[in-house]
Amino acid sequence: MTNRRLVILTEGRLDVFSAKTAVSVIRYRREDVVALIDRVNAGKDLESIIGIGQGIPIVSTIAEALHLNPTALLIGIAPPGGMLPPEWRKHITDALKNKLHIISGLHCHLNDDPEFCKLAYDHQREIRDVRKPPGNISLGTGKAKETKTLRILTVGSDCNIGKMVTSLEITSAAKKRGIHACFVATGQTGIMIDGSGIAVDHVISDFISGAAEKLVLDRAHYQLLSIEGQGAIVHPAYSGVTLGLLHGSAPQGLVLCHQPARKTLRHFADFPILPLPYLIELYEKLAQPVHPCKVIGISLNCFGMTDNDALQEIEKTGRETKLPVTDPIKFGVDKFIDRIIPLLP
Amino acid sequence: MTNRRLVILTEGRLDVFSAKTAVSVIRYRREDVVALIDRVNAGKDLESIIGIGQGIPIVSTIAEALHLNPTALLIGIAPPGGMLPPEWRKHITDALKNKLHIISGLHCHLNDDPEFCKLAYDHQREIRDVRKPPGNISLGTGKAKETKTLRILTVGSDCNIGKMVTSLEITSAAKKRGIHACFVATGQTGIMIDGSGIAVDHVISDFISGAAEKLVLDRAHYQLLSIEGQGAIVHPAYSGVTLGLLHGSAPQGLVLCHQPARKTLRHFADFPILPLPYLIELYEKLAQPVHPCKVIGISLNCFGMTDNDALQEIEKTGRETKLPVTDPIKFGVDKFIDRIIPLLP
Repeated sequence: MTNRRLVILTEGRLDVFSAKTAVSVIRYRREDVVALIDRVNAGKDLESIIGIGQGIPIVSTIAEALHLNPTALLIGIAPPGGMLPPEWRKHITDALKNKLHIISGLHCHLNDDPEFCKLAYDHQREIRDVRKPPGNISLGTGKAKETKTLRILTVGSDCNIGKMVTSLEITSAAKKRGIHACFVATGQTGIMIDGSGIAVDHVISDFISGAAEKLVLDRAHYQLLSIEGQGAIVHPAYSGVTLGLLHGSAPQGLVLCHQPARKTLRHFADFPILPLPYLIELYEKLAQPVHPCKVIGISLNCFGMTDNDALQEIEKTGRETKLPVTDPIKFGVDKFIDRIIPLLP
Repeated sequence: MTNRRLVILTEGRLDVFSAKTAVSVIRYRREDVVALIDRVNAGKDLESIIGIGQGIPIVSTIAEALHLNPTALLIGIAPPGGMLPPEWRKHITDALKNKLHIISGLHCHLNDDPEFCKLAYDHQREIRDVRKPPGNISLGTGKAKETKTLRILTVGSDCNIGKMVTSLEITSAAKKRGIHACFVATGQTGIMIDGSGIAVDHVISDFISGAAEKLVLDRAHYQLLSIEGQGAIVHPAYSGVTLGLLHGSAPQGLVLCHQPARKTLRHFADFPILPLPYLIELYEKLAQPVHPCKVIGISLNCFGMTDNDALQEIEKTGRETKLPVTDPIKFGVDKFIDRIIPLLP
């Protein structure tokens, strides 16, 4: 993770939600990023498109970024299904030929591609498929609940709504308050930012909770584990991952993430986002038999709203749920930390 | 599936629950089974141990079964974690050397084992890993709910409690009443019995609901799909698979399976079995946002009880849940079919 100089590939999908991986790596590892590759947006000002990343150039090809001495090409999107768009192959082969490592979180392992493998071997470079799980994951046993560490899991009213960001912000705010805290990455982007973790959406489905449990047991010496959530509990595609993670990590507290502007599930316009009280009851009721836990706060993603409008939403949601509510990016997560401190071991 | 003559390996684990695969294949494909291999129980009367399988000999080695002209060795257990007990290797190599095919539902693919592969190649025999999913599974889209077929899914208060048996019994009872019905296998044993299906517990976890959806879409021309459930919704190890299957198959009706004598989850003595009304509410509430559905009946597994005691349990459960209740093995599933017929397309 040290001294890496990343070129991030987004190729025309550069917006806050589609290029979640790129945006998050820029937000949390700004110092590692030297350029973006995106033919559609080449030459434009990155900050004006995604609100962060001031000064990072957007170019069209690997060749145009070589003078910045990059060490690796990072695949900057997380498309549903996780397949590689065919038009991206040339960027990857170009990168390997120019002695860059490859970092990918796609479901399809680039290490399984004969052409990429040969180039990586020929140029002595590494292809890191971060979604590939470790080999030693067991079935879930329910043992995470026996650890003393305080386990706080983010859950959501949808995917791609702010769970990882909330967990990262809780971790860094807790550290600033002197708490021995650890961010627990459970998805590709979190792993790219943190350097460790398991992509629980990529393990064999019988082992989801086992993977979550392993993440907790391996980090049980921390005071606080801030665990990145995945999916949403009533999502037609991803609910299984969400529930396995909930039961495997056995959190004592949940932070429910929500975007007020979103009315239907992203990419699933037939499915309305459910009311927060329904979701709170459902998450708590599902957790209860394995490990009782409570929703301790609501994290709102007010991206695109004025601060004033965001504050109104926060107040409204607070009245509706009787819980601490904040937008972590706009207003920080001190409200959550105040709630977490009395629960610490 | 035709003209197979199976030797089933159980090797000392011959009881109704541990050797679920063996027992179910004997129950539903009696005519295919020529012998069992189980050193501990060799020479004993099979029917007196598991209640079925009259006349099937139990022997110690493949060699002792060769005079019965077997065509395949079937691995007859489904251990938690799905690994191969090391002491079983010799039976598998013996089988291949004697020109038997291998049928396995373990999580570890026997096809990945170099020794087994070489023997299979040398003797021109096939190793069928039934848990290996097809390559063309997509992410779930929620489309199963748009099919006209009536989708009835079994769910449970625990694993290994009668979901597959209930789904099989519903299928055959429906066929007898003239309904164009199809059993939908979602686990290794169901696939071994039916010859088709997908082991949803073995797909990459992001694709659980996609696998369930594919099973429904590929069979949408039937009047009735009787879908085999998996796991249990508040199980510390398997809940993710259960929920992905529920959302992916989008059933209109559920049959909840339960064993009155069981007080804690099998293999998880710290986790009590939850009251049926709690489970009914939870399953319905989880399904509702993706596809509204109702529990239409309770299937009791009264194994080991007298018929009289079983009838008392059935009556008690009926009072408690106000739903049709039966033990499919002892008393058939006509009560469920009566409930299903008015729902047919």
